[in-house]
Amino acid sequence: MQLLKERIERDGRHLGGGILKVDSFMNHQIDPLLMRSIGDEFARRFRTLQPTKVLTAETSGIAPALAAAMALEIPLVFARKHQPVTMAETPLRETAASHTHGKDVELLVSPEYLSPSDRVLILDDFLATARTLHALVKLVQQSGAQLVGIGAVIEKSFEGGRKALTSLKVPVESLAVIERFEADQIVFEGHIVN
Amino acid sequence: MQLLKERIERDGRHLGGGILKVDSFMNHQIDPLLMRSIGDEFARRFRTLQPTKVLTAETSGIAPALAAAMALEIPLVFARKHQPVTMAETPLRETAASHTHGKDVELLVSPEYLSPSDRVLILDDFLATARTLHALVKLVQQSGAQLVGIGAVIEKSFEGGRKALTSLKVPVESLAVIERFEADQIVFEGHIVN
Repeated sequence: MQLLKERIERDGRHLGGGILKVDSFMNHQIDPLLMRSIGDEFARRFRTLQPTKVLTAETSGIAPALAAAMALEIPLVFARKHQPVTMAETPLRETAASHTHGKDVELLVSPEYLSPSDRVLILDDFLATARTLHALVKLVQQSGAQLVGIGAVIEKSFEGGRKALTSLKVPVESLAVIERFEADQIVFEGHIVN
Repeated sequence: MQLLKERIERDGRHLGGGILKVDSFMNHQIDPLLMRSIGDEFARRFRTLQPTKVLTAETSGIAPALAAAMALEIPLVFARKHQPVTMAETPLRETAASHTHGKDVELLVSPEYLSPSDRVLILDDFLATARTLHALVKLVQQSGAQLVGIGAVIEKSFEGGRKALTSLKVPVESLAVIERFEADQIVFEGHIVN
């Protein structure tokens, strides 16, 4: 997705250690028009799989997943990290290691909102090690729903997460794939940019 | 906002103690079309104040605030509860007591994304005691930006939060105002519904 790559080139910053700062447009400050385009692109790539629900994890997944849910006109469910008093007493639970927070987090989904008749599209901001995505996949499996696809806004292919998802035999789509960082340079799959 | 009130009547549930469960369409599962209508309504009510940024708090504020930011075509900033490694070293900080989680939470905003030239519209899912909204107001004040308005999707007027905001002398708008609960009945300002 060219618009996204250009934005990452312009405003993303490699902080070292493979950490990409995109919080000026994606996960602290959000550009809503870019987010709408991201949602439209996810919808374009996944619509034929006829998903009935989008599933993501709080917090950073919510914006792109909501934009996609708007374009697909299907509900979004976001897995919560803590159980609010309003949640069903026995939610589905999975544990995921968090890259950016440095500790394990639990992901909770109420069984009210994922059922065996659902066709689930999992979306998140990053595909890196895929630990969060994996926890979401396991939540879908627990619910008895059918997983139909997985999408990420930005993939860091050097972290190997995609390989861990291939056994699921569903389409895995990333809108921008970063192959590696070279000092200050962000190297996308296929070509080098500053 | 009639559409919203009808949805609350149909799918909201009073769990007792003034707690309203709306997680089938607003803060766990999200109806993206309702959310778009909510965003459009916020935009209609606040556009003339010429906001340059929408500010909310993670997690449940993100969806309605993003929908409004999309309609207003201005960036959304969401205050974070934890400092990710990508955040500026010295974020603006305020503490807010959380109603649904039962403990104090810290809200953090990077000073990169709120500046004295900004005109800030604060949006959140609920206006109840207004503790979260108050913490957001203090973040705006810390940044030197100008607060131009405050909006909530659902107000529980019996919790008195609106009174605590009047000294700010900015418009405070809620899209649905619940006056009280009577057992299973949700009583909106002005009329009774089941």
